[in-house]
Amino acid sequence: MVKSRKIYLDYAASVSPNPSSIHILGVEVKRKLENARAKVASVLGARPEEIIFTSGGTESNNLAIQGVIYSAETQDFFRSSGRPAGSTRPFKNLVSLPHIITTNIEHPSVLETFKILKKRKLAEISIVPVEANGIVDPKKIKKEIKKNTILVSVMYANNEIGTIQPIREITREIRHYNKNNRQGLLKNRPCLLHTDAVQAVNYLDLNVVKLGVDMLSFSGSKIEGAGRVGVLYKKKSVPLTAIFGGGDQEMGLRPGTENLSEILKFSKALKLVQKNKGKEKERLTKLQDYFIEKLEQLKNQGNSLPSREGISLIFNGDLENRLPNIINITFPKIPSDLLVMELSAKGIMASSKSACKSSQKEGSYVINAIHSAEAMPPLVSGGIASAGEIGGLRFSLGKKTTKADIDYTIKTLSEILQKLKKWYN
Amino acid sequence: MVKSRKIYLDYAASVSPNPSSIHILGVEVKRKLENARAKVASVLGARPEEIIFTSGGTESNNLAIQGVIYSAETQDFFRSSGRPAGSTRPFKNLVSLPHIITTNIEHPSVLETFKILKKRKLAEISIVPVEANGIVDPKKIKKEIKKNTILVSVMYANNEIGTIQPIREITREIRHYNKNNRQGLLKNRPCLLHTDAVQAVNYLDLNVVKLGVDMLSFSGSKIEGAGRVGVLYKKKSVPLTAIFGGGDQEMGLRPGTENLSEILKFSKALKLVQKNKGKEKERLTKLQDYFIEKLEQLKNQGNSLPSREGISLIFNGDLENRLPNIINITFPKIPSDLLVMELSAKGIMASSKSACKSSQKEGSYVINAIHSAEAMPPLVSGGIASAGEIGGLRFSLGKKTTKADIDYTIKTLSEILQKLKKWYN
Repeated sequence: MVKSRKIYLDYAASVSPNPSSIHILGVEVKRKLENARAKVASVLGARPEEIIFTSGGTESNNLAIQGVIYSAETQDFFRSSGRPAGSTRPFKNLVSLPHIITTNIEHPSVLETFKILKKRKLAEISIVPVEANGIVDPKKIKKEIKKNTILVSVMYANNEIGTIQPIREITREIRHYNKNNRQGLLKNRPCLLHTDAVQAVNYLDLNVVKLGVDMLSFSGSKIEGAGRVGVLYKKKSVPLTAIFGGGDQEMGLRPGTENLSEILKFSKALKLVQKNKGKEKERLTKLQDYFIEKLEQLKNQGNSLPSREGISLIFNGDLENRLPNIINITFPKIPSDLLVMELSAKGIMASSKSACKSSQKEGSYVINAIHSAEAMPPLVSGGIASAGEIGGLRFSLGKKTTKADIDYTIKTLSEILQKLKKWYN
Repeated sequence: MVKSRKIYLDYAASVSPNPSSIHILGVEVKRKLENARAKVASVLGARPEEIIFTSGGTESNNLAIQGVIYSAETQDFFRSSGRPAGSTRPFKNLVSLPHIITTNIEHPSVLETFKILKKRKLAEISIVPVEANGIVDPKKIKKEIKKNTILVSVMYANNEIGTIQPIREITREIRHYNKNNRQGLLKNRPCLLHTDAVQAVNYLDLNVVKLGVDMLSFSGSKIEGAGRVGVLYKKKSVPLTAIFGGGDQEMGLRPGTENLSEILKFSKALKLVQKNKGKEKERLTKLQDYFIEKLEQLKNQGNSLPSREGISLIFNGDLENRLPNIINITFPKIPSDLLVMELSAKGIMASSKSACKSSQKEGSYVINAIHSAEAMPPLVSGGIASAGEIGGLRFSLGKKTTKADIDYTIKTLSEILQKLKKWYN
């Protein structure tokens, strides 16, 4: 009986057993942690040791981008002075900074990280504009790759307009470049591809081998019942340096005790999402099609909507290559923030821009980006408000969304537009 | 009735309402978040806007240290070239790197962060050794402060040996220095004091005004029922730059959606800890005294313990200025890892070093630090094993620890020592 007695005298490690502890309770939770890691790896077609748990999507994106830059700092090629190992001659064609590429509609945790690295003089950056449909042209990415480019970061699907980026095509362009252009010193530093898959996780194939990505971020925040956990998949060969100093958790890449209870919830929820992905995608695609159809009808009501130069409702982002759960529209005369507030008063929770940037006064940079690509006359030259100020109204569907919700939303939106018509016509 | 209908079409923000969303559910959870922030602030005697929620203690420590360094990068004084604003003459006495000071027994999330900043050539660092009792001499800290010193980071209480550092005295030394030495360009960049209070949270006074600190980190991981949340208190005047790029959550200092459900649990648990602090400290101090008394008896059994040059058991760290819940001992001939495993087999969970560094082969750097300060002959010159290899056996008490637990632990430890005697004598 004495054997089954458990006395916990490891409160300073943490109040509940810590996977880094070497006693039996530590070993037990460590095993659970590694089971969860293996589960996540299986969904991605990756090896367990390629899965790093973080605190969320923002951290995963930062770790991917900052981590690659920091790992390059120690590499001869990127030192501002020095000579190749074993050589007495300094480098020819020495470049002092690594170069990284992204698009202009990435999540702030990617785009702002790029800007910070530039500001801190740690990287040279290129930001490739997407086309008017919210999709980036892989050829334009390829055109930006140069000798010192070590990373391309393109999101899998956009959080505001739902467009899906051509990740496989970008992979092909980068591989082609690496094969033909990375010789000599940089042979061991191919250009890598990172994708932010936070919005993709519920609906798109996350198999990293099929996608051909070197790193992939996602989180539990968009998964029903998953809790707050982030994941960074990092292919074994990818050189990465931790952002945080600290303990040696997560293969030394993410110091800090793992949030075990959340990770367990997360791995289970991810498995469930993976299992139901096909069915749920189908269900939401139908709902989305229905929603779009109803919005088209609203648009075709013509004069009942406040319009500018005949345009009364714009669908933002490609209508084909998109997630099944995000619809983003702009009414050329009505600020989207106002519509969000009006809908909210009627019990409908929508959004006008990324919640991550919601405290900023300016509008959505994503809507801005696609409208400036398109040079839409009513928005950019109307003189009343720019696309950025007007923004986009985003409806994002999920597990509990029903057809009745859509009907009520359309009805309510129509009423709100009737009311606002007086002021905005 | 229609009014009470709630339709959630903001799944892309997150599956449950996001405090950054502007719709009513967003506003509601934002209010809860700010209530939690105010609760935490009240425990610290701080203002709500001085409380930054992070993912844990490791992140809080990194944000404090890296954040101060990054904020200095943009400051004229620390630029490697340039001139004072409004001046045409370059600086006299230009220093290129900010200087930061810490001790040699800090948690890895402080100590390793210092080393990384040095390695990355972003900071000059000084690591002040503690005395043999595991306490740092404030005068030795002061001696290290120079013109370009912008931060001193000293832990409130040590995680391995439980010693309490003289934070108030260090505050005084730094204030004295700032008052007399920070003129001209650096007048607005006083030397700051950060303390890692992760281990102190349950037992010591966290009032930041009384402590006189500029930044203080702690986390939920040592608080019963608090979940995994980190806090960084940052005095309003302290210049800090975020580590992560991303959204504008947490006053722009910690991008990423806040982990609301954990933060709510955390703020409640912290309030409870604060309420019971006095009583619980008293209870554990008695238990600890009893534990120490029993260990003294074990020691005085003399020949029954494997001893080296007459020393059979060493208490690590000052026996007066210590937390009421950590006891750390070294048996000069027996590796502490082995004792942890033996105790674990009998159902007793103890620790041999910081769990954060448990996967490393070498022993505890904290035990090493105090034993090299002391120059203990049996450990450092015995020829069999160094202090680092032998390490320390840590028992850390908590909410559920009882006197019966201590009795059973002493009895079991005695039996284990009897068994091991054959091999280690």
